[in-house]
Amino acid sequence: MVVSGSAGVRVGIVGATGYVGGELIRLLTAHPAVRLVGLTGRDRHGDPVGSVHPHLSGTGLVLESELSGDVDAVFLALPHGTAAERVPELLDRGITVIDQGPDFRLREAADYPRWYAFEHPHPELLGRAVYGLPELHRAELLAAGTARATGTPALVGSPGCYPTATLLALAPLARAGLTADVVVDAKSGVSGAGREAKAEMLFAEVNESVRAYGVFSHRHTAEMEQELDRLSASAGGAAGARGLDFLPHLIPMTRGILASCHVRPTRPVSQAELDALYAEAYDEEPFVTVVDAPPSTGHVLGSNHARVFVRSDARTGRVIAIGVIDNLVKGAAGQGVQAFNLVFGLPETAGLEALPLAP
Amino acid sequence: MVVSGSAGVRVGIVGATGYVGGELIRLLTAHPAVRLVGLTGRDRHGDPVGSVHPHLSGTGLVLESELSGDVDAVFLALPHGTAAERVPELLDRGITVIDQGPDFRLREAADYPRWYAFEHPHPELLGRAVYGLPELHRAELLAAGTARATGTPALVGSPGCYPTATLLALAPLARAGLTADVVVDAKSGVSGAGREAKAEMLFAEVNESVRAYGVFSHRHTAEMEQELDRLSASAGGAAGARGLDFLPHLIPMTRGILASCHVRPTRPVSQAELDALYAEAYDEEPFVTVVDAPPSTGHVLGSNHARVFVRSDARTGRVIAIGVIDNLVKGAAGQGVQAFNLVFGLPETAGLEALPLAP
Amino acid sequence: MVVSGSAGVRVGIVGATGYVGGELIRLLTAHPAVRLVGLTGRDRHGDPVGSVHPHLSGTGLVLESELSGDVDAVFLALPHGTAAERVPELLDRGITVIDQGPDFRLREAADYPRWYAFEHPHPELLGRAVYGLPELHRAELLAAGTARATGTPALVGSPGCYPTATLLALAPLARAGLTADVVVDAKSGVSGAGREAKAEMLFAEVNESVRAYGVFSHRHTAEMEQELDRLSASAGGAAGARGLDFLPHLIPMTRGILASCHVRPTRPVSQAELDALYAEAYDEEPFVTVVDAPPSTGHVLGSNHARVFVRSDARTGRVIAIGVIDNLVKGAAGQGVQAFNLVFGLPETAGLEALPLAP
Amino acid sequence: MVVSGSAGVRVGIVGATGYVGGELIRLLTAHPAVRLVGLTGRDRHGDPVGSVHPHLSGTGLVLESELSGDVDAVFLALPHGTAAERVPELLDRGITVIDQGPDFRLREAADYPRWYAFEHPHPELLGRAVYGLPELHRAELLAAGTARATGTPALVGSPGCYPTATLLALAPLARAGLTADVVVDAKSGVSGAGREAKAEMLFAEVNESVRAYGVFSHRHTAEMEQELDRLSASAGGAAGARGLDFLPHLIPMTRGILASCHVRPTRPVSQAELDALYAEAYDEEPFVTVVDAPPSTGHVLGSNHARVFVRSDARTGRVIAIGVIDNLVKGAAGQGVQAFNLVFGLPETAGLEALPLAP
Repeated sequence: MVVSGSAGVRVGIVGATGYVGGELIRLLTAHPAVRLVGLTGRDRHGDPVGSVHPHLSGTGLVLESELSGDVDAVFLALPHGTAAERVPELLDRGITVIDQGPDFRLREAADYPRWYAFEHPHPELLGRAVYGLPELHRAELLAAGTARATGTPALVGSPGCYPTATLLALAPLARAGLTADVVVDAKSGVSGAGREAKAEMLFAEVNESVRAYGVFSHRHTAEMEQELDRLSASAGGAAGARGLDFLPHLIPMTRGILASCHVRPTRPVSQAELDALYAEAYDEEPFVTVVDAPPSTGHVLGSNHARVFVRSDARTGRVIAIGVIDNLVKGAAGQGVQAFNLVFGLPETAGLEALPLAP
Repeated sequence: MVVSGSAGVRVGIVGATGYVGGELIRLLTAHPAVRLVGLTGRDRHGDPVGSVHPHLSGTGLVLESELSGDVDAVFLALPHGTAAERVPELLDRGITVIDQGPDFRLREAADYPRWYAFEHPHPELLGRAVYGLPELHRAELLAAGTARATGTPALVGSPGCYPTATLLALAPLARAGLTADVVVDAKSGVSGAGREAKAEMLFAEVNESVRAYGVFSHRHTAEMEQELDRLSASAGGAAGARGLDFLPHLIPMTRGILASCHVRPTRPVSQAELDALYAEAYDEEPFVTVVDAPPSTGHVLGSNHARVFVRSDARTGRVIAIGVIDNLVKGAAGQGVQAFNLVFGLPETAGLEALPLAP
Repeated sequence: MVVSGSAGVRVGIVGATGYVGGELIRLLTAHPAVRLVGLTGRDRHGDPVGSVHPHLSGTGLVLESELSGDVDAVFLALPHGTAAERVPELLDRGITVIDQGPDFRLREAADYPRWYAFEHPHPELLGRAVYGLPELHRAELLAAGTARATGTPALVGSPGCYPTATLLALAPLARAGLTADVVVDAKSGVSGAGREAKAEMLFAEVNESVRAYGVFSHRHTAEMEQELDRLSASAGGAAGARGLDFLPHLIPMTRGILASCHVRPTRPVSQAELDALYAEAYDEEPFVTVVDAPPSTGHVLGSNHARVFVRSDARTGRVIAIGVIDNLVKGAAGQGVQAFNLVFGLPETAGLEALPLAP
Repeated sequence: MVVSGSAGVRVGIVGATGYVGGELIRLLTAHPAVRLVGLTGRDRHGDPVGSVHPHLSGTGLVLESELSGDVDAVFLALPHGTAAERVPELLDRGITVIDQGPDFRLREAADYPRWYAFEHPHPELLGRAVYGLPELHRAELLAAGTARATGTPALVGSPGCYPTATLLALAPLARAGLTADVVVDAKSGVSGAGREAKAEMLFAEVNESVRAYGVFSHRHTAEMEQELDRLSASAGGAAGARGLDFLPHLIPMTRGILASCHVRPTRPVSQAELDALYAEAYDEEPFVTVVDAPPSTGHVLGSNHARVFVRSDARTGRVIAIGVIDNLVKGAAGQGVQAFNLVFGLPETAGLEALPLAP
């Protein structure tokens, strides 16, 4: 974090008390080009950050009820539907917004009532927002940055955790028009469920057990279909992945998502072709590594890294692609920072260099 | 356990030192119609059971190097390929064999070199063996029991853990000829990997991480395809599930398997039809319950129960079926005991009445 | 569970929706001499047990708002202070009460405001209640059973989980007058904290972390001091263990308590003497085993067993005694059933024979 | 890590394949003043680091069989007894040694056969070695740095994990002569047991269980007694802590140590006095925070931070002091880097600024 008074982008966090908020604080206090000038949390005015996030007590930061003073960018970590109400005023004040929630991820306003059960109050902003997955939308993030430099604040809808792991695993296939029939079976640690006290998330309920949830109805399906469709269309492909079968599971761990993507490709595809597609997609990416053995979520814990694995099988004619991330970093706060870096013309990896923590 | 000297089926366990062996001891000492007369474990002659399974020290049992004395039935918990060598001599002695390993699960001898990398030494026994999933092969188990009563000892190949969870979830669909295209994405606790010291199974390696393994190559695929094919054929269906896409994962828990089966049915199928198919299949089953919310493995921990859930989705035209079991009970030792009960004309639930343990 | 209509003790459970309530249902439905005739849970009238305890859905039991019909005994699993209000009416109706909470564990009424912050509404019952640790109070439980048979219902205050593990570890030392200076450092799984939704008990908060709590103030201290004093006094010892230093810790597991008791004995004591004291105390006990290596809580999981270990050290002149139990069985529901068995003249182990579950 | 060719201290790691080795790589590659010029691991010549530590594959580093080229400092992460053999030759070559093992922690040569069962081959070096706990031995580390700058390489015996947590918790008490009678009851994650495949460290054995080990015999007792004695002596105190009762426990988590220190002080001590002693000791320390609620190991995960808590109790006349650390960072690799920084005249926090990771 840049010391007070010096240069650096002035950043605020709205909704700093949840798990994503905590990760944003952890990452941004260590960011070399950021001044963290405001943290807000409901009913928490004047509370030290350490009272909410004990591991961050050393930062000496304090929560406020409202963002005070001037900020250049705000990260929003709010429940869905809440951010949509607040964004216009922030943009009007010239503040760039990185929304960690879903309110600006979808391009079709009709998808909000359908998947999130609310009418979007500002559908006019959906076209302006960038889906903040840098590996798929880097050019748009950079363009938003150029616009920002000339006075138009940027609006980024930072992707969901499941879509991040899934899209990184599937993008090279989709871009090649190979993903007509897709099953995404994902496994997540429970930090993704947030910090609210719910009996079903008690340690004694989660430990030593696994279960599926959101069968045929998880909201992240919308993002995945939108992006896979877009990628397929770019290849002139018709199919895309409308009708995606997405099934998430909660497993007894805190962090990490593994998305297993089962694809019946539109035509036979060899391992060599897959290797070439994935190498082309990711060889230059700072945060995505293609690996040749099934990756563990533990290999990326605490970092902004993703690992991707893909296999073709002659016997069944099928392809399996697997992506792993830390849901709170590359699946949330870290990805937001990565997009922020692009928008503000900073090195894309600034503040995100930490290696994974293992064991 | 029937007290020494009284009546009761005399039972031995060969390979009593692993996790499945321990579960067999736990279940059979509490079985009302069994006398546990011999436990063997490599290099363990004279050792008390408690030195290997501390939780079972109260049984006062002792390990031997060889089964001594007369036994009516033997449970084998041995590495694959080992049981096949020993079974003929046991059958010759008139001893019924419940093999907990894979050596007598497959009907086609050619499947052994293909999936298990060994030539089966006694292919002539494969036709005689019964695949010991009582919910699918009860009549054969009872028939084997009838033959046993007249002098021909039975041979049961007790199913693998993944196939048990998967087949219970899919059988009603397969029997109706609905399962042409199947993805089975399974999650298992690590006790299934056994008790041998391997660095990759250390707590510090497994905890807080999830990974896939055996991509397109897990041996249990063979059993699943065999049985799904058989069920489909019984419906006059052509397809079956050759070309099954089976992907297992290790998750950070000790016990439990959840198999998520993603099916593109051969024709549209309504939830009502599914409900009827599953009710018909399982309403009379003592150990299988059809539930209407996604089940957790924690709901069956320590018990021989399975829970099955199925959903049809109009939007995608797909079906998801989920099965959960305790891999060491219904997925191994308990299932062996259930088959044993049928073969010996005992109540099918004898020794298996324990309720699940939660939380 | 005895089938409806037959003989058997008619038992009700008040507070059947928590973890202890669930364990009581699990144990009592399998109890050979019990008819479970009523289960109550706040605001749960008419709900099937499976809606609260999914693992017990197979019991087919249903919750009520009030105990209806005649019962011989009631188990109370209620917050502290609540049971004290209800017990007199139950006793008046001739119903034996096994209170799983603390309201009838302490002999001195003054200890309630001091440790539990409430005035006991019925101090006249404290002398009548038996502290339900059968290994220490078997004679009183049997005497209460005799009185019960002649029309005076019994009142049992079932011990706390920490005191159970601690007292079993220390009783032989205390009885020999050796425990003047005692540190009890205990580690517990989090199921002991109950099933109420609290943010600090979320999986993501508990996992991969350990912490102490209740420093110098945990309420169970009162029970431990009371019983250690009583045992010491029985040996003519003056000291007892007033001034006990008890420090509990929450560790990332669901079930199990390990109490490490550090004693500076009142005089030097050899390992041989310790062995003799512990053998004398426990050789005939059905649920307590003295072991010669430090026991794991995993060795007693799911069972009513306790394991105790003791070591003397010449270098330091100190003694360490360790006790392990399953906090929900021997530390709660199982212990209640054990006391119930004694009061009703049943075999002490009835319904409690299940072996531990491992791994 | 300083880029190749530039300035920076040239550092090697001997024994880079274990958990401590992995942490050293993680920390030193991010250290702004270090060039990591050599990593060795038995039988691993030419293997990429990622083949041993998959989470570190992004470093692009490769293992060697021997340190090649010039190095200024070497970290040794070797089994006890092994480092002692190798250190003289390294010192002769002018290389500063940070030994992460126990071979240079103890000042009395006689303590090695007594606690570690080997005769120290180089007792003449024990007086030269510095016990590398900067909070207690900063002046000596700086002095060793001064000597190093003039040609005498330094030798640091980096403290054990349990002693670090314990000594930080107790030092202010010991320095005040208050610690005559001490019980240290510690809880550790299992990464401290290392990465070797042992059946007792399998996930299925460790999970959902807790146990004590090393009863009255753990080797770290020697370090704790040595340092507590030294601190007490500095206060003119006679007693010290010879006869320390140290009991470690393994709990089902990967990282973290919590040491609960139970003290009967040599005289009554108020909370205010304790607060003053601890504030004086730690207010200026960059890595130690005194907290006013019992700390969790999760609050320091992945960081070099320690948290210390202390409470006096009027009723019992006792004091409880608690220390928490990440055993692989402040309890091993991080502490080694901290001492290295002092010896090389670098900022003490260089490379160690990462905040803890939670949840």
